Amino acid sequence: MTAPMLGIAMVGHAFMGAAHSQAWRVAHRFFDLPVRPVMAVLCGRDPARAQAAAERLGWAEAVSDWKSVLDRDDVQVVDICTPGDTHAEIAVAALAAGKHVLCEKPLANSVAEAEAMAEAAERAAQRGVRAMVGFSYRRVPALSLARDLVAQGRLGRIHHVRAVYLQDWIVDPAAPLSWRLDKEKAGSGALGDIGAHIVDATQFILGDTISEVSGTLETFVTERPLASSHSGLSGTASSDETGPVTVDDAALFLARFSGGALGSFEATRFANGRKNALRIEVNGSAGSLAFDFEDMNVLHYFDGTEDSAVAGFRRIVVTEPNHPYVAAWWPAGHVLGYEHAFTHQAVDFVRAVAEGTDPTPSFADGLQVQRVLAAVEASALSRSWHQV
Amino acid sequence: MTAPMLGIAMVGHAFMGAAHSQAWRVAHRFFDLPVRPVMAVLCGRDPARAQAAAERLGWAEAVSDWKSVLDRDDVQVVDICTPGDTHAEIAVAALAAGKHVLCEKPLANSVAEAEAMAEAAERAAQRGVRAMVGFSYRRVPALSLARDLVAQGRLGRIHHVRAVYLQDWIVDPAAPLSWRLDKEKAGSGALGDIGAHIVDATQFILGDTISEVSGTLETFVTERPLASSHSGLSGTASSDETGPVTVDDAALFLARFSGGALGSFEATRFANGRKNALRIEVNGSAGSLAFDFEDMNVLHYFDGTEDSAVAGFRRIVVTEPNHPYVAAWWPAGHVLGYEHAFTHQAVDFVRAVAEGTDPTPSFADGLQVQRVLAAVEASALSRSWHQV
Amino acid sequence: MTAPMLGIAMVGHAFMGAAHSQAWRVAHRFFDLPVRPVMAVLCGRDPARAQAAAERLGWAEAVSDWKSVLDRDDVQVVDICTPGDTHAEIAVAALAAGKHVLCEKPLANSVAEAEAMAEAAERAAQRGVRAMVGFSYRRVPALSLARDLVAQGRLGRIHHVRAVYLQDWIVDPAAPLSWRLDKEKAGSGALGDIGAHIVDATQFILGDTISEVSGTLETFVTERPLASSHSGLSGTASSDETGPVTVDDAALFLARFSGGALGSFEATRFANGRKNALRIEVNGSAGSLAFDFEDMNVLHYFDGTEDSAVAGFRRIVVTEPNHPYVAAWWPAGHVLGYEHAFTHQAVDFVRAVAEGTDPTPSFADGLQVQRVLAAVEASALSRSWHQV
Amino acid sequence: MTAPMLGIAMVGHAFMGAAHSQAWRVAHRFFDLPVRPVMAVLCGRDPARAQAAAERLGWAEAVSDWKSVLDRDDVQVVDICTPGDTHAEIAVAALAAGKHVLCEKPLANSVAEAEAMAEAAERAAQRGVRAMVGFSYRRVPALSLARDLVAQGRLGRIHHVRAVYLQDWIVDPAAPLSWRLDKEKAGSGALGDIGAHIVDATQFILGDTISEVSGTLETFVTERPLASSHSGLSGTASSDETGPVTVDDAALFLARFSGGALGSFEATRFANGRKNALRIEVNGSAGSLAFDFEDMNVLHYFDGTEDSAVAGFRRIVVTEPNHPYVAAWWPAGHVLGYEHAFTHQAVDFVRAVAEGTDPTPSFADGLQVQRVLAAVEASALSRSWHQV
Repeated sequence: MTAPMLGIAMVGHAFMGAAHSQAWRVAHRFFDLPVRPVMAVLCGRDPARAQAAAERLGWAEAVSDWKSVLDRDDVQVVDICTPGDTHAEIAVAALAAGKHVLCEKPLANSVAEAEAMAEAAERAAQRGVRAMVGFSYRRVPALSLARDLVAQGRLGRIHHVRAVYLQDWIVDPAAPLSWRLDKEKAGSGALGDIGAHIVDATQFILGDTISEVSGTLETFVTERPLASSHSGLSGTASSDETGPVTVDDAALFLARFSGGALGSFEATRFANGRKNALRIEVNGSAGSLAFDFEDMNVLHYFDGTEDSAVAGFRRIVVTEPNHPYVAAWWPAGHVLGYEHAFTHQAVDFVRAVAEGTDPTPSFADGLQVQRVLAAVEASALSRSWHQV
Repeated sequence: MTAPMLGIAMVGHAFMGAAHSQAWRVAHRFFDLPVRPVMAVLCGRDPARAQAAAERLGWAEAVSDWKSVLDRDDVQVVDICTPGDTHAEIAVAALAAGKHVLCEKPLANSVAEAEAMAEAAERAAQRGVRAMVGFSYRRVPALSLARDLVAQGRLGRIHHVRAVYLQDWIVDPAAPLSWRLDKEKAGSGALGDIGAHIVDATQFILGDTISEVSGTLETFVTERPLASSHSGLSGTASSDETGPVTVDDAALFLARFSGGALGSFEATRFANGRKNALRIEVNGSAGSLAFDFEDMNVLHYFDGTEDSAVAGFRRIVVTEPNHPYVAAWWPAGHVLGYEHAFTHQAVDFVRAVAEGTDPTPSFADGLQVQRVLAAVEASALSRSWHQV
Repeated sequence: MTAPMLGIAMVGHAFMGAAHSQAWRVAHRFFDLPVRPVMAVLCGRDPARAQAAAERLGWAEAVSDWKSVLDRDDVQVVDICTPGDTHAEIAVAALAAGKHVLCEKPLANSVAEAEAMAEAAERAAQRGVRAMVGFSYRRVPALSLARDLVAQGRLGRIHHVRAVYLQDWIVDPAAPLSWRLDKEKAGSGALGDIGAHIVDATQFILGDTISEVSGTLETFVTERPLASSHSGLSGTASSDETGPVTVDDAALFLARFSGGALGSFEATRFANGRKNALRIEVNGSAGSLAFDFEDMNVLHYFDGTEDSAVAGFRRIVVTEPNHPYVAAWWPAGHVLGYEHAFTHQAVDFVRAVAEGTDPTPSFADGLQVQRVLAAVEASALSRSWHQV
Repeated sequence: MTAPMLGIAMVGHAFMGAAHSQAWRVAHRFFDLPVRPVMAVLCGRDPARAQAAAERLGWAEAVSDWKSVLDRDDVQVVDICTPGDTHAEIAVAALAAGKHVLCEKPLANSVAEAEAMAEAAERAAQRGVRAMVGFSYRRVPALSLARDLVAQGRLGRIHHVRAVYLQDWIVDPAAPLSWRLDKEKAGSGALGDIGAHIVDATQFILGDTISEVSGTLETFVTERPLASSHSGLSGTASSDETGPVTVDDAALFLARFSGGALGSFEATRFANGRKNALRIEVNGSAGSLAFDFEDMNVLHYFDGTEDSAVAGFRRIVVTEPNHPYVAAWWPAGHVLGYEHAFTHQAVDFVRAVAEGTDPTPSFADGLQVQRVLAAVEASALSRSWHQV
């Protein structure tokens, strides 16, 4: 009667570590899982901080060297929640060691790293070892529903995709430098951090890929106070010293999808008053969709085939039992939050592992997103359109 | 080829006079009318102010005695835009003189007056003389559409009606006394001024009447500075003198409709931040409707018969050619404003007169609203339910 | 370094049991708690179902007799998640046995039971034993913020409170009978189930109590098919047999608060298309607030003291670190869901127990809500206003 | 006492002709004007249709040759409402004849024409003859307020401008060819028709100009049925014959403003369900603004300097007496519609003429917009950024 165990080792324990921990903790309490995730070990460079995190987040144990988990029999999954510059090394090693890997997005900081990871994942898959990249927004029920509606043909031929991801957490020039503003650690700024999300989400919804882009990048504040620590998302500055911002504050690009749709994308950390406004609109020959993460339980849907006297964007509250993932939770109208998408991600990952199928988004999908980001950067440099 | 003329005499020239003038001026420019309204004469007690108003509003002439228009051959219509205490006298006299009458709401300040007016209208109708009360919101396209959808049975059996009319123009205790706060002139306060609108609008949408009510009235600020003039809606106070507020600031009541629906009503001038929020929601066994005048070109419609996976309140932008009144105006998406409902009212009135039919809402409809208001007042006094 | 343990026994394991379990599971992972809740034992009448629930929900043990937990040393808290007809017996016994009690709302099915419970709680408090009633919506951050803004005087004198709780889960006449439609088990229908929430929430926000009411109740569908089981919120009907609905489908009432505010309340399960629309608007002399649970991370606030050129209802996304409860969770803009309010409730309860203070809402608060509900029922019978 | 007259000759009488006629008819009824517009003569190529239009729209006379009005003493203003290919000829001739000119947007179909017009306007201005281009949206009160707030410095340094103009009137491939789809007549498609509006509106709000662009154009449906007439905006197809669409269905471009702001622009006639969604968002270092024409009486404003506990986008209902243009109309909360912007445009034009000042937007402003549009087209051809 008891489900077999699936031992998890999580690397990293900041924002994403907390979100993933909640997912591992909660998934089997609401969803029927063929194997039960066990929060076996948390890895963090600083032993004291790792130990404290393990206790707070509920991991059985803490270690300071992630490599030590690779030959442990009680670990079947490595969950990578570190900054992007470490993804490739950890993921490739874990896959080689036969561990299933769930890796936070963006897959890597460069196309080269992402290619190595995708190759490693492909080799691993042949041995039954699974890899998945953590584009969690795919698992927000409203976006899963959006994908379903497009796949059912309800929107017809897609003409337009409009996606923005608006934040404002560094609009204040006094906000300190963090690893997210350091190209070495983060790879890029708004582009890779939040732009990656809207690239993945729109490609997912359309079931299509971006084929060419024309973009521009901007750093509005080029020098910032040094932070006292590297821990926080924003934190407070500790001294009069400043350092250079080496990533983009904002990234805008136009895109064309393989299937003919036109795309407009914008990712920024300077949209004053917008905290986490991931917004997507899709217009097709038969209908349209619109989504805003600040109202994440809602999908707006226009059915263009209806009598115009009663046609209008429908505000679908995506909390019905027949909506994706929802039946496991609460009655209709009892809304979900940000973290639930991570639980859904864990559920799908665990099921794929147990059923011996490849979870999505795959590392190849993550690589494709990375190629789009790289094309945007190349395009911004050349000031012209660039193929993905 | 030229349409015959329909001479209009308008009595009163304040807020409502300006709105009606715009309607008479504009109606035949957008709608095909069998007779063309002519702005013949404006009546106002103060000759100088009446003359200035006539020039500004575009009336050919001004007179100070409304009775003088009753035997003029160039006047076929008397349009009453004065405070409620004068409606009965003018309307009864005008109908007796064979003039068609359009009378602003509320029909009268008492049931007795309203009864006299309804009787006069009934007698006049037998002679082909028409009477109509100016519940203009019926002619907001979104509310006309709401009525159509209910009449088509799309909502099924109606369970609930929820209507509020929220304003805040006297929430400041320093706002001066005006005729609208004087029971002699205005009859009542929020109840008759704006409560009358939601009573009429909901009865119109349902095609049903309120049969009993339980209500309460409140005057939050009982003493106010005297105003310098009686002209304005709010104006500014001129002196240290104050006078008593003799009407209600707010009126709330529960209601039952003849057809079984439950109603909740609230009219107030103390809803801080709400300027003209006439909001109506109707819930039926097969669907629901919601409307907010602050977004007056939109009707929200929920079709309860749809698959729950894609069901949601539709935001119908009521600017399509197949929406009521809209084809005469602009292309889809080019929204209308407050005053357009008055133009639609004028159009329907003129057509009824020309075609020899009785326009709605009739004086009998206005009397019925008056009876509901009186029942609310009686109920508030007796602190119990009261039949209409 | 390790926090002392606080053993929890939970009685009942349906919808509320799942929500409370999530709270006990999660609270100490995000909040610093002086004592750590331990999910010790789950009580359910049917041993097999209780055992399955304990495993699924993560309780160490299951028992079929709740009385058995009262003398267990590893249990310090009894958490009551059963239907209202059993609350009084369990709570009184648990308090007498020295167990802290968290009891789901409504506190009881009658004023008499609630009085007994409040007395028991008062006696227990003298011995350091704590009692709290589970009006969880108080702990939605947006509603906590609403309470703070009113307490700070930002709204001035309160004139109006408007609260509705709209659902539609039994608008279909084919929806089966459940214990929630049975007066014996549920006490009342929409009135006690969801009306209780808006009574508590508005009294909480205002820091005031309702002193008199005038209400009406309605049962639109008086006969329904029998359900196959008692488990679900709606479920499916199993046979051609029907049974009587003995509770109200909808409850409407007007209210007056001790401090002078007017209230309008409506609770219904027949608002087609509204799934869980708990909506509250408060209008004061200095500003207004509006909330809708379907967009639960948002509070709308109008500051009436601002220059009217830039005044408007502010859409506050209540996810900032300085908003109630929020700092423990995610960065700004990463929204919370329905269940988080239960976690906040658990946090506040645990802290009160550990700190030796009385948590709110107290059983006396729950009794006061019960008196309002009873007054509504009495008022509906007498068709007149009724004192609370 | 009577204001002097200002004789107007209007050329063209389709959609824009109706909107301008309403403005000339209404302006002096609500606004105090130093000179009174007189609807002297309407010009249309087809005498019968021109005569019918003059009667319907209220012009004293109709002529078929617009040149005939240039030497009439009763005409002081030529109002150009024809397709873009005729603007230059008419405007240059009218200015040369000493007539003030109000010309619909876009100013012309090419930069060369627009340059000639701007030069003519500059020469005319030296003789006291005024010219203005009809970017009417500037006079929507909410957008005028937006401009004021930016000019007051409330947004600080502008980082982002996001503007879309979404329509769907030709998303159906069966929608017929009209002059608006013919490059000869219309110059371009969505780019010039609606893209021009968002270029002007954003430059106006920022008080800045676009300096470079990178864009793309798309025609989704390249062949359409021939229309039976040239009159309508959409109309119905008359035959099986088809013709080529020679303009863009959609235009997207990125932009940089001289002051450093980044812009994202999209104009399309293929956004299913969007009827007239002109949406603009501006993000600055101190605050943000958002506007949607489908809710045109509202401006959303975020004040980034406020305490984050109560900060949020304010929904300003732009109907207060201290909002631009509003005092002339109705009490607060009584909303305006599409056509009111044309009335405001007429008011400002008439006042400038009477006061001897140059109205804005000038022909030079119109030329600048034309240069942006041309740069977008050049950029789309070269697939790279292009200077304006």
